[in-house]
Amino acid sequence: MERFDPMSSTQIQPLAPDGYRLRLPGPTFVPERVLQAGAQLVVNHRGPEFRAALVRAEAGLQPILGTRNRILFYAASGSGMMEAAIVNVAGPGDELLIVTHGQFGERFTTIAQAVGAKADVIATPWGEDIDIDAVQARLREKPYRAMVVVHNESSTGIVADLASLGALVRNSPTLLVVDSVSGLGGIEMKQDEWGVDILVSASQKALMCPPGLGLASISPKAWDVINGGGRLPSFYWDFRRAQASAEKGETPFTPAVGLVAGLLEALDMIHAEGLPQVLARHTRLANALRAGGAAIGLSDFGTGKRKSATVVVFDVPAPLDGAVIVRELYQRHRTVIAGARNRLSGKVIRIGTMGAIDADTIYTDLAHLENVLPDLGHALTAGAGVAAAKAYLE
Amino acid sequence: MERFDPMSSTQIQPLAPDGYRLRLPGPTFVPERVLQAGAQLVVNHRGPEFRAALVRAEAGLQPILGTRNRILFYAASGSGMMEAAIVNVAGPGDELLIVTHGQFGERFTTIAQAVGAKADVIATPWGEDIDIDAVQARLREKPYRAMVVVHNESSTGIVADLASLGALVRNSPTLLVVDSVSGLGGIEMKQDEWGVDILVSASQKALMCPPGLGLASISPKAWDVINGGGRLPSFYWDFRRAQASAEKGETPFTPAVGLVAGLLEALDMIHAEGLPQVLARHTRLANALRAGGAAIGLSDFGTGKRKSATVVVFDVPAPLDGAVIVRELYQRHRTVIAGARNRLSGKVIRIGTMGAIDADTIYTDLAHLENVLPDLGHALTAGAGVAAAKAYLE
Repeated sequence: MERFDPMSSTQIQPLAPDGYRLRLPGPTFVPERVLQAGAQLVVNHRGPEFRAALVRAEAGLQPILGTRNRILFYAASGSGMMEAAIVNVAGPGDELLIVTHGQFGERFTTIAQAVGAKADVIATPWGEDIDIDAVQARLREKPYRAMVVVHNESSTGIVADLASLGALVRNSPTLLVVDSVSGLGGIEMKQDEWGVDILVSASQKALMCPPGLGLASISPKAWDVINGGGRLPSFYWDFRRAQASAEKGETPFTPAVGLVAGLLEALDMIHAEGLPQVLARHTRLANALRAGGAAIGLSDFGTGKRKSATVVVFDVPAPLDGAVIVRELYQRHRTVIAGARNRLSGKVIRIGTMGAIDADTIYTDLAHLENVLPDLGHALTAGAGVAAAKAYLE
Repeated sequence: MERFDPMSSTQIQPLAPDGYRLRLPGPTFVPERVLQAGAQLVVNHRGPEFRAALVRAEAGLQPILGTRNRILFYAASGSGMMEAAIVNVAGPGDELLIVTHGQFGERFTTIAQAVGAKADVIATPWGEDIDIDAVQARLREKPYRAMVVVHNESSTGIVADLASLGALVRNSPTLLVVDSVSGLGGIEMKQDEWGVDILVSASQKALMCPPGLGLASISPKAWDVINGGGRLPSFYWDFRRAQASAEKGETPFTPAVGLVAGLLEALDMIHAEGLPQVLARHTRLANALRAGGAAIGLSDFGTGKRKSATVVVFDVPAPLDGAVIVRELYQRHRTVIAGARNRLSGKVIRIGTMGAIDADTIYTDLAHLENVLPDLGHALTAGAGVAAAKAYLE
């Protein structure tokens, strides 16, 4: 007899130490309900149960995206979805206008170059708002295939004004391609109203799911370009294939079934709270963290006015090193925040304010900062940060 | 005060009905231990906990692949990994020899054409063994960049003789590119010994994990080609980027953290049972299912001798329709097997014999077939299938 013991006596080796607090600007803390939904039995990805799940997922996501488009699902990281967004509309020689305002916009440029497109870049200084007039002027210079922009730059904490950018191209052949990986579900998105033609996102930020699930939503205007195009240099990312499967209630390739199951619960939680309430909570909690930071000498990075509701980026007060703050928060409190892995390395710290968080999350962040910073030589009034955040919220 | 309730009172809506039996040739049944490991708190994908997880995952996978290469991890479906395998070594105009013996080999051809490579195809009739001599003759005709083959064709139940194929190209510049999505962990793989240069696989088959995690292993010979190449038309699939991150204990993009956590447990289970024992169990259980099928009038599809240990493909006895058998098994028993979504549609049924299965799994499959087939007009001796499988195993 062949025997298999599906639950051996060996204890699962936990990944995280007790008290671990995931406070990154993504991946974010995943609610237990979402985790447990994802730990259900895997079902046939071409059976009636999963078809029903895709219907629920699409219906739950559409209001969050502000769209009536189909939602296409991929097993992919956010960067994969960024590549999908580009490769479906631009190939060798096609002109793209990449409006960068941080690290992920620069990634779009790298992807555009990889697929052979001609990438013109408007490089917004990091931490500043995108200059809409400058974009408008550049758009007059060439018949760009698409303008490409990151909605929420988690590297800088600044949000692009998609309504204004969309208005610039709405009545032209130019498409608007947007990455809202770190914005969607925490910052207002009105894809159809704003004229966002290709919107891509991922599961592990304000959508409160583990990483590994990507999604895309494509406007009729973008479909005209995609369907009129020729061979894509990709099979996996071909939106036409994903759309054809979606019409049958399927995905073209074996999807991350468990992540979709988790997403259903996350979407139910968002709509139970109410999408306007969820977005307002994000804004208030981000502002509370900023108020608390200001009270202990942590100022916002950059001069931009369009501050993110899903990530707070603090300047590191001289002569401190951001990496040391990150390390100390982890070692003393198991609070995991981000520094920077780019030109801002050491100069900023970044804390997620997205997804499954509440006022206590912010107070704890501030309390831990208040514990750590003085030992690193940064003077502050103990309790001032938490008090300022409380004052803001109450 | 902003409040967020991470576990609302709403019950999780289960995806699957009670008694659901996932018996596909993938995705496969996932053991509870793996599911629960994947439902742990998500950790920082660039922190020490996840670095340690990647080290464990690589160490656990290397003997299963039979390699000392690094293992590269992607958030991707198996088809994404197939694309990665091609796009890293072949671009426009490069000559590939695709040795097909089923549906997934044909997918390789589609991918090769998408990236612009010139794909010569040796189309093995489905269900037959690959003609090694014919492959050898074709390899003499051109200096192919790579020979591309699917290890285990889950569409036909036939396994490629990789040792012989590898020997054909070992001393030539031609690479051997292999998809072992549905073989790895259930069928012997000796990547280094056989000379497999690029091996890609995925989590949801014999590795007993949910879908969404892809992996790749690249030989030094393949690295010479990849590093000597120019621009890839892809950012996401660029193995150089993944390798550079792996050297730092990371992945280039946010990985499917929960799936890696689950994989660690699956790997521990495989090595606790013993890899040779796991492979032997797969072979014996597949043979037991074939013996049971034969006793109730279900014969193996095709004339090939190299039968798969991870999937059994039965001819559908005339005048039955495979889709009806699949539907009846589901409706009466919640047993989910596969038909075919290709030229064999209606003509075969396919049952996974991979991953977390034991003798009882096979007996139950056969018992359900014995219940369903007579009502569809196929005469059989009740109990004969289960008895034959038992006789084989005891």
